[in-house]
Amino acid sequence: MYVIIVYDVGVERVNNVRKFLRQYMMWKQNSVFEGELTPAEYERVKKGIKEIVNKDLDFVIFYSVRDRKYLKVEEVGESKVETGNIL
Amino acid sequence: MYVIIVYDVGVERVNNVRKFLRQYMMWKQNSVFEGELTPAEYERVKKGIKEIVNKDLDFVIFYSVRDRKYLKVEEVGESKVETGNIL
Repeated sequence: MYVIIVYDVGVERVNNVRKFLRQYMMWKQNSVFEGELTPAEYERVKKGIKEIVNKDLDFVIFYSVRDRKYLKVEEVGESKVETGNIL
Repeated sequence: MYVIIVYDVGVERVNNVRKFLRQYMMWKQNSVFEGELTPAEYERVKKGIKEIVNKDLDFVIFYSVRDRKYLKVEEVGESKVETGNIL
């Protein structure tokens, strides 16, 4: 399955969210990760995120499609995040 | 079609992006809009965004599925954006 995660998370937790998500997915934009996950990985990612964030203060949306072929992606401009070695 | 737009746009342009997108879509998260669009509206939205943003400085991603049934959406926490009358 192909997954897009967007988050609005308190500054105290945002690095933990990023470090965690980078184990599984690609950092695309300041608050956006995307990537191909198995259903088991997806469950692990959701569980991990729920453990890191504060439900009362943060907001995370998980968008997923069963197969990437259902998703069209178009971009204007270029990614500003360093996908290399920021964290 | 169902469309998700995520953006990382300079502070001078971000209000214009939001004002523009709110004519067509739902403001879900700080830098995320989503909504059902006709293909013609989708083209209009992409064109409008290209006119507002600076390709060298900004980055906008358009994710779309032909039918919303292909997209699964799960949320942790709640939206922090006022969908009412901020702008």
